[in-house]
Amino acid sequence: MTGPDTQTLADRVAAGERRALARAITLVESNRLDHRASATALLDALPDRQALRIGLSGTPGVGKSTFIESFGQSLTGQGMRIAVLAVDPSSARSGGSILGDKTRMERLSRDPNAFIRPSPAQTQLGGVARRTREVIRLCEAAGYDAVMIETVGVGQSETMVADMTDLFVLLLAPAGGDELQGVKRGIMEIADLILVNKADGDLKPAAARTCADYAGALRLLRKRPQDPDGFPKALTVSALTGEGMDTAWADMQALTDWRREHGHWDRRRRDQARHWFEEEVRQGLLARLTGDAEAKARMQALGEAVARGETAPTAAAEQMLATLR
Amino acid sequence: MTGPDTQTLADRVAAGERRALARAITLVESNRLDHRASATALLDALPDRQALRIGLSGTPGVGKSTFIESFGQSLTGQGMRIAVLAVDPSSARSGGSILGDKTRMERLSRDPNAFIRPSPAQTQLGGVARRTREVIRLCEAAGYDAVMIETVGVGQSETMVADMTDLFVLLLAPAGGDELQGVKRGIMEIADLILVNKADGDLKPAAARTCADYAGALRLLRKRPQDPDGFPKALTVSALTGEGMDTAWADMQALTDWRREHGHWDRRRRDQARHWFEEEVRQGLLARLTGDAEAKARMQALGEAVARGETAPTAAAEQMLATLR
Ligand SMILES: Nc1nc2c(ncn2[C@@H]2O[C@H](COP(=O)(O)OP(=O)(O)O)[C@@H](O)[C@H]2O)c(=O)[nH]1
Ligand SMILES: Nc1nc2c(ncn2[C@@H]2O[C@H](COP(=O)(O)OP(=O)(O)O)[C@@H](O)[C@H]2O)c(=O)[nH]1
Ligand SMILES: [Mg+2]
Ligand SMILES: [Mg+2]
Repeated sequence: MTGPDTQTLADRVAAGERRALARAITLVESNRLDHRASATALLDALPDRQALRIGLSGTPGVGKSTFIESFGQSLTGQGMRIAVLAVDPSSARSGGSILGDKTRMERLSRDPNAFIRPSPAQTQLGGVARRTREVIRLCEAAGYDAVMIETVGVGQSETMVADMTDLFVLLLAPAGGDELQGVKRGIMEIADLILVNKADGDLKPAAARTCADYAGALRLLRKRPQDPDGFPKALTVSALTGEGMDTAWADMQALTDWRREHGHWDRRRRDQARHWFEEEVRQGLLARLTGDAEAKARMQALGEAVARGETAPTAAAEQMLATLR
Repeated sequence: MTGPDTQTLADRVAAGERRALARAITLVESNRLDHRASATALLDALPDRQALRIGLSGTPGVGKSTFIESFGQSLTGQGMRIAVLAVDPSSARSGGSILGDKTRMERLSRDPNAFIRPSPAQTQLGGVARRTREVIRLCEAAGYDAVMIETVGVGQSETMVADMTDLFVLLLAPAGGDELQGVKRGIMEIADLILVNKADGDLKPAAARTCADYAGALRLLRKRPQDPDGFPKALTVSALTGEGMDTAWADMQALTDWRREHGHWDRRRRDQARHWFEEEVRQGLLARLTGDAEAKARMQALGEAVARGETAPTAAAEQMLATLR
């Protein structure tokens, strides 16, 4: 793509054209070197706009897709434009992409004010993070008011998503008394809002109990400077009936407004930008190990010498590093 | 430490002297540059010996410490010498080191044939991995027959431990029917043996049910080339009464023997050595970002420019990388 084309695409993205946005995302997600250069130019040419970035995490089956369908429509119903992305760091081994189930988001996916983008082909967590950040930037430049980033709780993907969003929402299912320990400790500490889903029909009492348990657990955590009184908060919702969507949104807004007023919003964005930079440097440095054919061949040869037991891992690593000076 | 001293320490470690081993571990764990050089020299001077490396993972409270106390004594009772290490990647945030509870390993910790080493101070996962690999090497050189590496299931620590051991054991507690989804999918796929602990007293029936559930789930997984028929396997044990320790050990031996005979043991060790080498190179490369004062200052300055919004994260990263050529 040449300069003028980049500018045209940037203009069309900024004007909110869905097809231009889709094309821009494909460009950003591409691994081709020439595409990468165009992507960087495109990102440079776009206006700086901010959307509310909402991270959403939960184990499979908890109701993420159904929630997005319901919550998303409640936002577009208020005239907002929303984008929905997925971060799927699952390895080739475990397979399966998320957000593939558009059946559960049938109405939202036909809503002209909603833009849903399934997760791209699997790559390394570092690569996924970089791309997702860029796609968020694209959606913001396209004028969306909110960008939801869905992730399944695999490995460190929640932390990664929390590191690129303004709000982090944890979706849980009603459960027995033991369930508290099922949530990874680190997640409780990054959640801004815990939503116990499926609070309908027979599950309603269990949802209320689970919600009370988590509310209790949240109170045990040390207060974070970025939280007003009463946050982080646990609520019950039903993605199926839509109950609780308004309350959840009101809480997200209250939290966001407070953070904006008290400087936390800006600080968080600044810290995230810095972290993004550091990650880019790290990834770029590591890319040198495989970037040119010579380095790659040397890695390969040394790796084989190590596997054959001829060289100790640490000694071989020192040799490799010496050639990279 | 000078050359002759290194050789003396190496000789004493190789002769099985506990205090020499403890000193060698402290050296390997040190962050001081001169210690690092001595550590590398020490590792070079040690004989190549192999112990059975057993990874052990499980959530807090499942009974890991109690299991190690019981299982460890059952091994030393057969004349074996065993070493016990811990990998604790918990961040400064979540705090708390494992294997600190020597109270649960009271008898084993007084056993002359057992060497227990608590986890060192917290650092980055990459650093923990490197050090743990070196400590394993030390324990092997010291002539231990088995090295157990305990880890709490936080983030990617299980994968890391599995990548440095011959066998990976997952310890579970008896639980209700929903519990299956509580185990991270990736863990099921790296486990060689699932032990449902606390199969005693009132919990015995629940343990049997849980064990049957997991045995069923294991059968649903694709067969791995490194497994003989019947593996991975789920068993019930009681760390409290010692029941099942012999069976667990017999299974570990059967699996190990089969893998040795069929070339899988060697292949796995080779792959792990290669992976270790690659990790060392990556870590060494990344260390350049903070290694000298100039690079560190540049990272800092660019990071601040990004935080102030003066430079885009990607553009700043390109600048930084250019200076590292
Ligand atoms: N009763 C009830 N079921 C729900 C609710 N939300 C989702 N479900 C059901 O839970 C299952 C999983 O939902 P899905 O949205 O695909 O979960 P995901 O895997 O987290 O995306 C489906 O059968 C949904 O119909 C809810 O609020 N109430
Ligand atoms: N009934 C029963 N309790 C056990 C068993 N093993 C451990 N426990 C108990 O479970 C609790 C946690 O054990 P601990 O070894 O500290 O678990 P860790 O956190 O995984 O190291 C303690 O109260 C132990 O006494 C067992 O086999 N049976
Ligand atoms: Mg879904
Ligand atoms: Mg313990």
